[in-house]
Amino acid sequence: MRCSEIIEKKRNGEILSCKEMEFLIDGYVKGLIPDYQIAAFLMAIYFQGLTEEETIYLTEAMINSGERIDLSSVTGVKADKHSTGGVGDKTTLVLGPLIAAGGIKVAKMSGRGLGHTGGTLDKLESIPGFRTQLSPEEFRENVNKLGIAVVGQTADLVPADKKLYALRDVTATVESVPLIASSIMSKKIAAGADVIVLDVKYGSGAFMKTAEQAKDLADAMVKIGLGLGKKMAALITNMDRPLGYAIGNALEIKEAIDTLKGKGPVDLSDLCLNLAGEIFYLAGKASDFSSGRELARGLLSRGAALDKFREFIAAQGGSKDVVETENLLPQADFRFTVQASVKGWINNMKTRDLGLAAMKLGAGRSTKDDTIDSGVGLVCYKKTGDYVEKGDTLAMIHANDEDQVDEVKKLVLQSYIIKETPPAEKPLIYGIVKESGFEKWSG
Amino acid sequence: MRCSEIIEKKRNGEILSCKEMEFLIDGYVKGLIPDYQIAAFLMAIYFQGLTEEETIYLTEAMINSGERIDLSSVTGVKADKHSTGGVGDKTTLVLGPLIAAGGIKVAKMSGRGLGHTGGTLDKLESIPGFRTQLSPEEFRENVNKLGIAVVGQTADLVPADKKLYALRDVTATVESVPLIASSIMSKKIAAGADVIVLDVKYGSGAFMKTAEQAKDLADAMVKIGLGLGKKMAALITNMDRPLGYAIGNALEIKEAIDTLKGKGPVDLSDLCLNLAGEIFYLAGKASDFSSGRELARGLLSRGAALDKFREFIAAQGGSKDVVETENLLPQADFRFTVQASVKGWINNMKTRDLGLAAMKLGAGRSTKDDTIDSGVGLVCYKKTGDYVEKGDTLAMIHANDEDQVDEVKKLVLQSYIIKETPPAEKPLIYGIVKESGFEKWSG
Repeated sequence: MRCSEIIEKKRNGEILSCKEMEFLIDGYVKGLIPDYQIAAFLMAIYFQGLTEEETIYLTEAMINSGERIDLSSVTGVKADKHSTGGVGDKTTLVLGPLIAAGGIKVAKMSGRGLGHTGGTLDKLESIPGFRTQLSPEEFRENVNKLGIAVVGQTADLVPADKKLYALRDVTATVESVPLIASSIMSKKIAAGADVIVLDVKYGSGAFMKTAEQAKDLADAMVKIGLGLGKKMAALITNMDRPLGYAIGNALEIKEAIDTLKGKGPVDLSDLCLNLAGEIFYLAGKASDFSSGRELARGLLSRGAALDKFREFIAAQGGSKDVVETENLLPQADFRFTVQASVKGWINNMKTRDLGLAAMKLGAGRSTKDDTIDSGVGLVCYKKTGDYVEKGDTLAMIHANDEDQVDEVKKLVLQSYIIKETPPAEKPLIYGIVKESGFEKWSG
Repeated sequence: MRCSEIIEKKRNGEILSCKEMEFLIDGYVKGLIPDYQIAAFLMAIYFQGLTEEETIYLTEAMINSGERIDLSSVTGVKADKHSTGGVGDKTTLVLGPLIAAGGIKVAKMSGRGLGHTGGTLDKLESIPGFRTQLSPEEFRENVNKLGIAVVGQTADLVPADKKLYALRDVTATVESVPLIASSIMSKKIAAGADVIVLDVKYGSGAFMKTAEQAKDLADAMVKIGLGLGKKMAALITNMDRPLGYAIGNALEIKEAIDTLKGKGPVDLSDLCLNLAGEIFYLAGKASDFSSGRELARGLLSRGAALDKFREFIAAQGGSKDVVETENLLPQADFRFTVQASVKGWINNMKTRDLGLAAMKLGAGRSTKDDTIDSGVGLVCYKKTGDYVEKGDTLAMIHANDEDQVDEVKKLVLQSYIIKETPPAEKPLIYGIVKESGFEKWSG
């Protein structure tokens, strides 16, 4: 097999075999095939795409490049959720304990934040004492005993993805549905779950700008998972406003706890219940989605999910008292309000800019080596669809550095688009991609 | 300027500025931009193409990567001809002396053969004593004194092309009109000619398979040359049969001498007269193409071109007696005829296979490091359009190794497509691309 001939085949729109895909990925990871040939191959994929089968071959080849997490000693159904990245997305913090309380095993590998999006690990580390590094034995033991553990991704998981992503990043080949889908799904599948539910975001704060694009990505990922023997579903959700109110690590932990207590933001609570309902159904804990959601609602309302959260935090060394005593969490020194300069309906929010504003305060990283300031962030009291009078508080800035506040205030104010007429309603959940295909969301 | 953003622009079909193109090519040649980014860029060009202006920017940036040949001390109009590579193409051997006899200066850098096509340098080196390495001073002096010198390309001419071509070769990005055009034209322009006439081949023995493809390439090259201040024209010629009869180095020298004596194959003679006519017109030696061709015909018929050939050979150390005493040229030990196995009209010839058959005999190189056997090759007495009886001699194999002959015989025989009806006539010259655009050839 010659590498340049395989590139030429893809360039001409021909379909590659499993062996050809393996040859490229395996050769690349082993250093037998140079970066420049894979760069040309990735650009050819950008233009010619990959079929469903080719995308599965690629994903399998990527998974085979490294270790798979061995969860064979974990009893019961293992489920995982993945979000394509949003602003204020603290879903994992609520959903994990919620489904674990329902008997699902959550052996989760999470990431850190970069740019305008935050990361679950950073958020958890704002809880005093919380450890995100567990030994493989401790990880499996916690999952078996409590039903949940959350750690950082190990270095040996899908090395092909690390190498390919670094190359895509500098060769303008990031924005390709099959490449994004295989990158995400290779890691999810290597992490060992049986049930995988995806939250594919679209809108101003998401990577995918339109619902159609998100649907295509969701479809590609669901097909990969099904092709590789997983139970799959993907919700397509709107990111034209932050999820919940809080953006920033400790602020989001607090909001997650509120949600576990049953008094969280409606959008966040709703999304978590729907994701949990789908997981319970796919895992065989409920006969259909509706009864799965009712199961989740019951676990939340009778405090079982909150109890599980406490156990989970304690098991990883964190102070479970943060649940009752919120000021055990890091807090910023200063608070400043951002007030509406005109009256009217909030028609839209530049959600990405809000994420970047929080990053500027120290809640996120502009490069991988930046450190996180856990206490800072934003709370957006008003969101898209709300009516405001001039002078109403739109958001609260939590800062540790007064000098940044003017710039951040301006950024936050500019990210609110206020008009005289109300916006068209855009539901949080646009639709779902299941084994049977796409369905518009009916609630 | 960020490299990945320029790649992304081209990927999205946007138009690059001169500065952006320079940034990439200059950075690449200096080693500041890695192969993998340029590989992705080349694949993006494969899909999105380049505008006329972008192609000129690319060509200029490539020229600026190295030295330009300084022909300022050469008096008179400097002309160059380039063929995109065919089988049995000995045009330069006839055309060079012919236009030099007409007062045009020919300061030619030629190449070596690879694969199924031969190279002018290899052909000239079959003349005993001939040197293709001259010092820059000797080169310019010969051009000034005799009007013609032919040498190998210097290492410092367009280093960007060497680097880009090597990368294209292994990334499936060779077949792109703007990339082919800029590769050829950068070298031609850096070599210093004022008038450049191109012979763009199409058909079974050429890189471009159809007349339309050849027209596109011719058009791109003419526009680059015009954009960079050169007098330009490109003939589009058919390569569905070898040019002339002979394929192989010394055999082609002999045929070129025959042509200079006025007794060469009609197609070769015609092509040389037409190319010369266009050059004389563009160089201002004739008021129009027809009188340019008449000038060439006169120079040929009264022996001036042959005299110039003798001088040229002698000036580069070669034995000029080969003109009169053909067996001073290397000759193969064995000759074998290939006979028609059926009667009928030769409808087509697999010209590329004939080139490869000659290569197998030793007349060409399958890799850069192979050595050439000057005496071997093929003479195709019968060509497309001819009628043959069963048993007629189609071609003569000139070989030094008897063991190869059976295989070569089979290859030659299979490359003749003989049918019961005559083929549609395909003229040697399909058309011409000039400053005013494309014109179908009227003879």
